[in-house]
Amino acid sequence: MKVVKVGLLGLGTVGGGTVNVLTKNAQEISRRSGCEIVVSSASARDITRPRICNTDTLHLTTDSQEIINDPDVQIVVELMGGIEPAKSLILEALSKGKHVVTANKALIANHGNELFVAAAENKVTLAYEAAIAGGIPIVKAMREGLSANSIEWLAGIINGTGNFILTEMFEKGSVFSDVLKEAQELGYAEADPEYDVEGIDAAHKLCILASLAFGMPLNFERVYTEGISTVTPLDIAYADELGYRVKHLGVARKTKMGVEMRVHPTLIPEKRLIANVDGVMNAVVVKGNAVGPTLYYGAGAGAEATASAVIADIIDICRDLDTPTVNAVPALGFATSALEELPILPIESITTAFYLRLSVEDKPGVMAAITKILADHGISIEAVQQKEPEQHGDKAQVILLTDSVVEKSLINALTEIESLDSINQPAVRIRVESLQ
Amino acid sequence: MKVVKVGLLGLGTVGGGTVNVLTKNAQEISRRSGCEIVVSSASARDITRPRICNTDTLHLTTDSQEIINDPDVQIVVELMGGIEPAKSLILEALSKGKHVVTANKALIANHGNELFVAAAENKVTLAYEAAIAGGIPIVKAMREGLSANSIEWLAGIINGTGNFILTEMFEKGSVFSDVLKEAQELGYAEADPEYDVEGIDAAHKLCILASLAFGMPLNFERVYTEGISTVTPLDIAYADELGYRVKHLGVARKTKMGVEMRVHPTLIPEKRLIANVDGVMNAVVVKGNAVGPTLYYGAGAGAEATASAVIADIIDICRDLDTPTVNAVPALGFATSALEELPILPIESITTAFYLRLSVEDKPGVMAAITKILADHGISIEAVQQKEPEQHGDKAQVILLTDSVVEKSLINALTEIESLDSINQPAVRIRVESLQ
Repeated sequence: MKVVKVGLLGLGTVGGGTVNVLTKNAQEISRRSGCEIVVSSASARDITRPRICNTDTLHLTTDSQEIINDPDVQIVVELMGGIEPAKSLILEALSKGKHVVTANKALIANHGNELFVAAAENKVTLAYEAAIAGGIPIVKAMREGLSANSIEWLAGIINGTGNFILTEMFEKGSVFSDVLKEAQELGYAEADPEYDVEGIDAAHKLCILASLAFGMPLNFERVYTEGISTVTPLDIAYADELGYRVKHLGVARKTKMGVEMRVHPTLIPEKRLIANVDGVMNAVVVKGNAVGPTLYYGAGAGAEATASAVIADIIDICRDLDTPTVNAVPALGFATSALEELPILPIESITTAFYLRLSVEDKPGVMAAITKILADHGISIEAVQQKEPEQHGDKAQVILLTDSVVEKSLINALTEIESLDSINQPAVRIRVESLQ
Repeated sequence: MKVVKVGLLGLGTVGGGTVNVLTKNAQEISRRSGCEIVVSSASARDITRPRICNTDTLHLTTDSQEIINDPDVQIVVELMGGIEPAKSLILEALSKGKHVVTANKALIANHGNELFVAAAENKVTLAYEAAIAGGIPIVKAMREGLSANSIEWLAGIINGTGNFILTEMFEKGSVFSDVLKEAQELGYAEADPEYDVEGIDAAHKLCILASLAFGMPLNFERVYTEGISTVTPLDIAYADELGYRVKHLGVARKTKMGVEMRVHPTLIPEKRLIANVDGVMNAVVVKGNAVGPTLYYGAGAGAEATASAVIADIIDICRDLDTPTVNAVPALGFATSALEELPILPIESITTAFYLRLSVEDKPGVMAAITKILADHGISIEAVQQKEPEQHGDKAQVILLTDSVVEKSLINALTEIESLDSINQPAVRIRVESLQ
């Protein structure tokens, strides 16, 4: 049986998981790929550190360059993360005719356009299934499974840490900061949680998903991003009363005006399957104009779940290794020459429904004043509830669900509402998606 | 741009949908495939009948042979259904070096082993994504997306008609026969509903999924099949009280003893995502030993949803059309030479938990007698409820959830229980799956 040698750049959680899965499923993987896939070498900053995998048969090195230069290594797997030196190492590996597999979403989101061209020029594959939603084969689904469709929109829970936090807040009524601490203790959140809870990690993934969906170059800097640190258990509870769950969603939508790319807390009707995706799990809904809504669910992180996607990419490459026509499936699913720059809408121009919470003085005429301002701005109200103050002196809470409205109009209306005498705090607003 | 000519055998719902989707998404499909895909001809029994698609640019014929013989047709799409003449036509098309796409689950389940060998010998592709779960790209997910995994089990709602009926029975408390009539009026069920409600259609799909999962030849005749016509709204309501939904599930599992393949009504904990897949929608959960549980959800039928899968297969073929190495991905995901005959377990040897309902005389000692017999057979009880008779003279209902038990032991215990004086009706039993 043909032996294919793989070199790993990075031997942390995902690298160790990749070695472990290749070992434990070696027989199954050979039966599927027709090859014996061998990790021959791995680089790491400190090669004396204990590893989650057996390293007896690996050549360990601190010098990634050694792996890139090894003529026996046909596939380089980049699992270091970060932009440099990952980017330079990948470019060099591609230029030496090696296929590259990466799980590096930040790198693909920021520099994928350049990297994909380099791969195509060198007639090798740059695969990145593991960069989005861990073990869920969402890149393959979008690039190949749904290739007959014009994609209308997609919406995903694509950060497990954020979903764990919102799930705990919902189930236990806890505040954000407490759950974040718990997530850090459980190892679900980093010591510096900004990438996860402020939506940057989700924005990296969303940007790639949007390009896969609409056939446009990657535009990471154009993704609108809002985190979950301002979400309160009060709003989660009020949303629940109205029949909604609050999820941190990445949404990409193609409209006649242009493309929306946004990551923000979102109310979703509790009846939708994705509203019931809890804990650290991930899921992506993709709406095609032929197939209708489809959903893909699974573990978005973890050593072996991510390794599952890394190795699927390796097997894809092995299955095509003897083929002169490489890159049969283009990196973003559309021929590079067929990618189109599409207008990307600023958040102010986007139309969504809104959940609003206003803290108001409990006196006559307040509700009338609020609803009049909304009406003046052409904003219809879907539902309204007034919650009386729990203690004397507290504010009453007015909860509103609006119909779809251009964000700019809503902001204008809220500016007027917030200037009312009886309103002393800024309104809480969370976007609502029906996902139908 | 390269033009690829496609011939359709059959121009009914899916054939018409295929023409319509290829037309409306022509631009997107060219950008993805690098080809212009043209349906040049289609065969149908009656070419004068009105069609759901425009046929102006098609050559319509009653003679399928004409399409097979056309040297310009590179891809033949078989959408006639049934075994013959579909099988002979496909074999002939393959022998002429044409690639074939089919949505014919009965044919693949019964004759796939022979057909896949014929395709490999002729160095062409026989693709069948549309045969399972309509537009959900589940074949691709299992064959490629999860290729790093040893699959432990899978469970699917893979018949939309059956799921529609069970959903209506749950939501409205209606009896099976009434909902079946409604489904027939809505066009969700055939005039002869046997294939759908007795689980034969689901068994075809399950058999293919099991071979994809475990790398074994297709063994349709070994699938255990039980329909939903005996499910009552009473049992659905009792299951609900216990926190379960009743779904018609196809289950394939690999154990140390052998492979289970079975289609039957099943209680699933309501917390599982798949328990909330309602109406005509389909979903499949696949549990890999690296990735953990993953779920794929979407429309399992319908003209354009099924066409989405048919065209995805066509695009896959187009992307590889210039490649001398065809069949890079083997038909069942494992190299044909690597397929293994695995022992298939008879239903009596399978271990599952059970929901039991017994109609009993409401007198002292009955519960003690029942539980003693279960204990004597080593069957643990997870939950028990006694429902008093609603009217004098009615039977009381004893509802039991057992722990996992070998089916043979349960049958033996039930034989003893049913011979008790106070029990005059056969027990109702429905298998329970935790799906974790």
